[in-house]
Amino acid sequence: MKRLVIFLFSVSYAAAVCTSAKCETGRYQPNWENLDKRPLPEWYDKAKIGIFLHWGVFSVPSYGSEWFWSNWHGNNSIHVDFMKKNYRPGFTYQEFAPMLTAEFFNPDEWAKLFQRAGAKYVVLTSKHHEGFTMFPSKKSFSWNSVEVGPHRDIVGELGKAVKDHGLVFGVYHSLFEWFNPIYLKDKSELFATRDYPTTKLWPDLKQLINDYEPSILWSDGDWEALDSYWKSTDFLAWLYNDSPVKDRIVVNDRWGIGIPCHHGDFYNCQDRYNPGKLQNHKWENAFTLDSKSWGWRRDLQLRDLMTLDDLIKEVVSTVSCGGNALINVGPTKEGTIAPIFQERLLSFGKWLRVNGEAIYESSPWQHQNDSRNANVWYTCRKTSYDGLRPTSKPLKTDKVSATYAIFLKWPANNVLEVKDLTPYLHSGNFAVGMLGKACETLNWTISNGLTYITLPDKAAVRTEHAWALRITLK
Amino acid sequence: MKRLVIFLFSVSYAAAVCTSAKCETGRYQPNWENLDKRPLPEWYDKAKIGIFLHWGVFSVPSYGSEWFWSNWHGNNSIHVDFMKKNYRPGFTYQEFAPMLTAEFFNPDEWAKLFQRAGAKYVVLTSKHHEGFTMFPSKKSFSWNSVEVGPHRDIVGELGKAVKDHGLVFGVYHSLFEWFNPIYLKDKSELFATRDYPTTKLWPDLKQLINDYEPSILWSDGDWEALDSYWKSTDFLAWLYNDSPVKDRIVVNDRWGIGIPCHHGDFYNCQDRYNPGKLQNHKWENAFTLDSKSWGWRRDLQLRDLMTLDDLIKEVVSTVSCGGNALINVGPTKEGTIAPIFQERLLSFGKWLRVNGEAIYESSPWQHQNDSRNANVWYTCRKTSYDGLRPTSKPLKTDKVSATYAIFLKWPANNVLEVKDLTPYLHSGNFAVGMLGKACETLNWTISNGLTYITLPDKAAVRTEHAWALRITLK
Amino acid sequence: MKRLVIFLFSVSYAAAVCTSAKCETGRYQPNWENLDKRPLPEWYDKAKIGIFLHWGVFSVPSYGSEWFWSNWHGNNSIHVDFMKKNYRPGFTYQEFAPMLTAEFFNPDEWAKLFQRAGAKYVVLTSKHHEGFTMFPSKKSFSWNSVEVGPHRDIVGELGKAVKDHGLVFGVYHSLFEWFNPIYLKDKSELFATRDYPTTKLWPDLKQLINDYEPSILWSDGDWEALDSYWKSTDFLAWLYNDSPVKDRIVVNDRWGIGIPCHHGDFYNCQDRYNPGKLQNHKWENAFTLDSKSWGWRRDLQLRDLMTLDDLIKEVVSTVSCGGNALINVGPTKEGTIAPIFQERLLSFGKWLRVNGEAIYESSPWQHQNDSRNANVWYTCRKTSYDGLRPTSKPLKTDKVSATYAIFLKWPANNVLEVKDLTPYLHSGNFAVGMLGKACETLNWTISNGLTYITLPDKAAVRTEHAWALRITLK
Amino acid sequence: MKRLVIFLFSVSYAAAVCTSAKCETGRYQPNWENLDKRPLPEWYDKAKIGIFLHWGVFSVPSYGSEWFWSNWHGNNSIHVDFMKKNYRPGFTYQEFAPMLTAEFFNPDEWAKLFQRAGAKYVVLTSKHHEGFTMFPSKKSFSWNSVEVGPHRDIVGELGKAVKDHGLVFGVYHSLFEWFNPIYLKDKSELFATRDYPTTKLWPDLKQLINDYEPSILWSDGDWEALDSYWKSTDFLAWLYNDSPVKDRIVVNDRWGIGIPCHHGDFYNCQDRYNPGKLQNHKWENAFTLDSKSWGWRRDLQLRDLMTLDDLIKEVVSTVSCGGNALINVGPTKEGTIAPIFQERLLSFGKWLRVNGEAIYESSPWQHQNDSRNANVWYTCRKTSYDGLRPTSKPLKTDKVSATYAIFLKWPANNVLEVKDLTPYLHSGNFAVGMLGKACETLNWTISNGLTYITLPDKAAVRTEHAWALRITLK
Repeated sequence: MKRLVIFLFSVSYAAAVCTSAKCETGRYQPNWENLDKRPLPEWYDKAKIGIFLHWGVFSVPSYGSEWFWSNWHGNNSIHVDFMKKNYRPGFTYQEFAPMLTAEFFNPDEWAKLFQRAGAKYVVLTSKHHEGFTMFPSKKSFSWNSVEVGPHRDIVGELGKAVKDHGLVFGVYHSLFEWFNPIYLKDKSELFATRDYPTTKLWPDLKQLINDYEPSILWSDGDWEALDSYWKSTDFLAWLYNDSPVKDRIVVNDRWGIGIPCHHGDFYNCQDRYNPGKLQNHKWENAFTLDSKSWGWRRDLQLRDLMTLDDLIKEVVSTVSCGGNALINVGPTKEGTIAPIFQERLLSFGKWLRVNGEAIYESSPWQHQNDSRNANVWYTCRKTSYDGLRPTSKPLKTDKVSATYAIFLKWPANNVLEVKDLTPYLHSGNFAVGMLGKACETLNWTISNGLTYITLPDKAAVRTEHAWALRITLK
Repeated sequence: MKRLVIFLFSVSYAAAVCTSAKCETGRYQPNWENLDKRPLPEWYDKAKIGIFLHWGVFSVPSYGSEWFWSNWHGNNSIHVDFMKKNYRPGFTYQEFAPMLTAEFFNPDEWAKLFQRAGAKYVVLTSKHHEGFTMFPSKKSFSWNSVEVGPHRDIVGELGKAVKDHGLVFGVYHSLFEWFNPIYLKDKSELFATRDYPTTKLWPDLKQLINDYEPSILWSDGDWEALDSYWKSTDFLAWLYNDSPVKDRIVVNDRWGIGIPCHHGDFYNCQDRYNPGKLQNHKWENAFTLDSKSWGWRRDLQLRDLMTLDDLIKEVVSTVSCGGNALINVGPTKEGTIAPIFQERLLSFGKWLRVNGEAIYESSPWQHQNDSRNANVWYTCRKTSYDGLRPTSKPLKTDKVSATYAIFLKWPANNVLEVKDLTPYLHSGNFAVGMLGKACETLNWTISNGLTYITLPDKAAVRTEHAWALRITLK
Repeated sequence: MKRLVIFLFSVSYAAAVCTSAKCETGRYQPNWENLDKRPLPEWYDKAKIGIFLHWGVFSVPSYGSEWFWSNWHGNNSIHVDFMKKNYRPGFTYQEFAPMLTAEFFNPDEWAKLFQRAGAKYVVLTSKHHEGFTMFPSKKSFSWNSVEVGPHRDIVGELGKAVKDHGLVFGVYHSLFEWFNPIYLKDKSELFATRDYPTTKLWPDLKQLINDYEPSILWSDGDWEALDSYWKSTDFLAWLYNDSPVKDRIVVNDRWGIGIPCHHGDFYNCQDRYNPGKLQNHKWENAFTLDSKSWGWRRDLQLRDLMTLDDLIKEVVSTVSCGGNALINVGPTKEGTIAPIFQERLLSFGKWLRVNGEAIYESSPWQHQNDSRNANVWYTCRKTSYDGLRPTSKPLKTDKVSATYAIFLKWPANNVLEVKDLTPYLHSGNFAVGMLGKACETLNWTISNGLTYITLPDKAAVRTEHAWALRITLK
Repeated sequence: MKRLVIFLFSVSYAAAVCTSAKCETGRYQPNWENLDKRPLPEWYDKAKIGIFLHWGVFSVPSYGSEWFWSNWHGNNSIHVDFMKKNYRPGFTYQEFAPMLTAEFFNPDEWAKLFQRAGAKYVVLTSKHHEGFTMFPSKKSFSWNSVEVGPHRDIVGELGKAVKDHGLVFGVYHSLFEWFNPIYLKDKSELFATRDYPTTKLWPDLKQLINDYEPSILWSDGDWEALDSYWKSTDFLAWLYNDSPVKDRIVVNDRWGIGIPCHHGDFYNCQDRYNPGKLQNHKWENAFTLDSKSWGWRRDLQLRDLMTLDDLIKEVVSTVSCGGNALINVGPTKEGTIAPIFQERLLSFGKWLRVNGEAIYESSPWQHQNDSRNANVWYTCRKTSYDGLRPTSKPLKTDKVSATYAIFLKWPANNVLEVKDLTPYLHSGNFAVGMLGKACETLNWTISNGLTYITLPDKAAVRTEHAWALRITLK
């Protein structure tokens, strides 16, 4: 297979066609049973790699984590001490906002970086739990990025740049707001009133969808109330039926108590969810390079950061099990992506330029993590992309144009030992090669049920960190 | 008459009793015809003198006037230049708010000052057109004085202090907000939608009334829409029927296009309204010591300020014609009342300590401004305070316990010449004295229809600026 | 005498001519005995009224007094609390300097104000004890008004404006600096080293004199060291002999331990020095309208301020005893003169427009404060101004063109009773008039050694607060 | 040779003994001829690797480079635009200083990082050309890190931490100051006056040496004046004879026009000096990881940064030619070392933990850069460290305990081809091993004057980026 996937990848939004008897009207009904029938827009499953950006007023104190406000007001001692030491008494969180200056924010540079990192989509916090909107919300007077701080429509500018660079744009959005009194009032009434969803949440969400036409709505902050309070299913029915992005939008699963991991176009379940085995439903592993925070921390120490090895392992294990990887970095209040993040992302992009064929548009193979060699993960490529939910049943070889075995550690003896490939290799006449060394065919032998593949001389291999073998019929 | 009014004055709230056949149910109906029948709570007419405070984020730039934001965004050149010269490009109005530090705000000191100035009530801008609330509005997240700037509930603290010092507390409140997108949306739809009144205005107004129980609601910012948009009559019916302040509240007349000068407990008509003649309805002259601004201006020049003579003239002419005087000063962003305002207010209070008898609880007399001597204005005191709307018909002497002639200029020949007193002096056996010189009886003669009153030796008079003669039956 | 003094007053600098045998060389010697022989430039004695301006970084905290830094570091509790409450921990005094924005500083407006206040000279703090120079000192890198805060040469701009308006310009200058380590080093060595005078003090003083050519050098901060440390006499010899202002400069007396009240062109002795009797040497009463501070205090309360009565009394009693009055006001960090100061100054100027004849270019009379009526103070005008040091010996009537009795309280019976005029009135044929009522001659009688002057009808007198009688030979 | 150099390395300061007849008195004379005779303290040559830190007020704008002030005032357009866009008109450089908050500055963490990076010494900008001192200079009132910004003695705190972690501490110090008027005055007089060196420079330098006892004085900013203006030789004579660090101090060569590359304990010549061949005098290559700036730039892009390969190449080529490597990173205004710098330094430290034996305490070998294979650089280790200036003459094998060939690129065929080793290998019975693979002996052959060394299987080598072969007698 000579197809150079990374050059051919293009975002084609497959129309979500409702074929089920349940929706003869051609419209989705506002209940989970019906909404769950919506087919996942194909582009999302193919994309595999996204960038997650946590940016907001929390990027100003830039200390502890993006939960700064909540932790501080919850009397977490390091936050309380930080404020005592560095700010005048009485200083409020809102007073950080004018310092979110974003003077270096260059959305085209950002988009270029994410593109070179190999990402296919970008998800920005349009509003985190703090409630500060990174767009000129019509319901967030004086608490948004146009009126305070950057003086720019961050969502709008980044969205345009991202699309201009051929990537898909998505928005993160927190349903609740820690300290918005309209929400707190509803909450204090045990959600018997619904002022907040009516006067703030729905208008904001509709503005986001209508004005910026994102292809992902990454919901969060749902856990304090039921979906009946949020009116999640009504919103999704509108989104799927009537919104300008109805054909291509994908949403995650954070839509109220009990919903995550059960409903949604894809599941995030918990943060950093990486189950290590095949899932029955499309899912996404959202994780952050800074192990301690999603937002930028000014005092970030290198030891808290994922290495490139960690990153590749996280992505490979995720994709192998049918997930997408959403890699988070936190921009600074100045509007930069810290060089250390540039380094990780660009190095990762460099790795993908060789190995992306085993990632993008791939499908889970019949095994995921080799049962003998834990450093090996499998993906495959279908002869015809079927958008199928992954399965562990043996795949017929005529349905698979290539199988990939990605190994994270180079064996000292240059021989890769695996088990789960053995039956497959018995099923046909296969050639084994290594991505990046296209012309070379590797020798392999089978013995006692194990497959031994002789690797090329490492001195002649330019890839580092992880390597992908391609197994195809001769 | 030996009653020392200023010591006896006390705020007794007369219940507004609905005696009209129109409201048999005992409840006000939400229409002007019915609302207009409500009797004016007596305390307000008696009080005569109030202090008006314009304080808000505009007190930070403190330049031009409290309309800074609107003028700046309307490209008024001095405002645009000021911003260009003194702030970084892109700086927004909202970013002034953290500088509203109010570190010297001492509400008890303020209340003491207003009391010593002779005021009986105090009206504070709870929210000006900028929308920044000086109280923790539940609908103004991150744009209020508790969350940004002072970190204090200004309305609450000042209200308490004012009441503690025996004065009446009132709140100014702007119906519209220049730049609140919720309002602008309704406006752009020609007020066919009513999101703003429903989700912002009414909740704020109710919070203000319920939480702070003010006795005055001084409405403003009404002029862009009809009262049907604001639902003014509904609000007032609630206020008069069901609010915790229903018996004592008074409101002004700014409730929508066409309403000012036609409906309301008292009329403000235009700013600085001072008609110079008797009115058919209770009214108030709201004016500001700084002739160019209601908010504090840091570059205030003395030449722009009313002198004490100006102030006394304004008050005397107002009270004489049945009005109340609402004297405005603008506090600084630091929370101080500028010494020059202290000076004017305390000097005025000193004048009132001698002459207050002719002001507080007075009624209009049958003449107001003497037709011969423009420097003379009349008031009177009824034997029994009747809350009556003033009238120009001759008052029977048995209904009047004292008549006051206040003159603003001491005649160089020590003889005060007036005309309108002449018939009255003919109608009984009167004694004339001067306030502050209680024991001395003045000689007067009548000639050619004019009355000539011989004043005391000025060297022995301690009052300055204006003097009040008291005419009583012997 | 019809001379309208205030219009004719002009600053003519009398050359200081050395006539003494001690200085045959025509040059002053650097010792006090010799320096003391220098005649006082005539303009200074004639001027009588000056304005003192305390402006500097202390105008930023603008709290407590201009000694803020010293008091704070000396652990004065209100200062320590103020800092704790309002600033982040560790905030230093130097960090106030960028906030000395002076955006409204308009030197021409200031000069106009001082002129209308009746001042003949203006003295500005070119550098207070804090060491911050209000001019681009060549020895105060990064701690001056051009490089931090106003970004302007305050001394230069104000000096020009003051001179343009026909007033005399002077500079206050503190010899020591509280916290300059160069000074502190000398001090810690008991002034045995002299690095500070050599590398900082002298260069600054020379720059001030050479670049701005002030006519007054108002020295301060001298009290920790002897004049031998400061090299005061050397400096003054240079100033009197070689500086560009040698003919017109006047200096005060703060030039080292033991010097005040003993040497200098005029004596300040202590702050607010007002001995109440004639002095043997020219002196000046420097006092401040805010009784608690020389620098502006943002929380100034009216009760701390001198009234106009206080101010007139202070000036009259000072001039009567041969002193000049240096009236201090503290500008704000924004560059304004607070309206309350404008009010005091302009009201005082209004008083002087009537009564200035008794003040400007006047000389002490043979009595100062009337021995019977403590509210009366005397001055006089010589037929030929003699620059004489004041004396208490009887003045011959032909040497005096007019005697002035200024009284601070109008007698309730309109008759002014004095004693010290009696012998004088016996010595010739005198007419008595009141300034401002030029054409009217007053009756007076003498009885039992007391003089009784019948005043005009007060209703016809436009002056307030204090009145001046003029006694001239018919 | 089994000595594990990196654990044994300890800073032993060799006394500088004057053995020459020229200095019988035992004291250095203030002339270059004599000063040049001083032996280089041995510790410095052995140390090889230092960290350079550019930190100051320039770290606040953190834009362009540490020459921000000069470039801005020199009307460099990107700097001018940056200021126009982001700061209020008139904003001065000095006003950046309060924002040098350094709230995260943890000197022990820094020292630990530098230690783990393999550095043996650390050089901090105690004062850059801006004049802001990072210590409480007694001659820089209000323009130093204790009084403005960090409120800490940065030099003192870092010096202590560095020494506590067993590293050597040095200070960078700029002789001139761009905008200090004392300097500018001397300059405008063509350096005929010397006020600046006398009153500012010398006192600062002595305070630095006496208070902080650094072992390196890294002079800069010398180029506008001759050493006779700076009095460099006098200063150095004091430093070598009488200072508390006379035995261990080393200085560079920037002491006036014409001095660099000619005098000093070691030569820096130009920035980033790396001649690529053996030098006759000890030298140092000071270079910066950010290719565009020595100070931190907030908008640093990864593409401007040296890679680890670049860094290793720079160090290896430098040490091979007898130089030391001074690796610069710019801390942030918050007091952090950016994670990207941590990454480079720690990765480099990791490399050194394997390969440091070829670097620390090494000497130049008889060849430096292999004449056949430009990717190979040589060092050696003497049997007895002789502090000798490097030489290109053949070294006798009994004087050399080990020779090191460091190669920067792994040959694809696993055979390293070099030329300059060939004669040496002929001269004895040698074993060749690879650092990090201690027990393995490599095969080599010689053919046609070239040496071919068969490398180990790369899959079994843990080192990356560069590798060192050790050649020792069997």
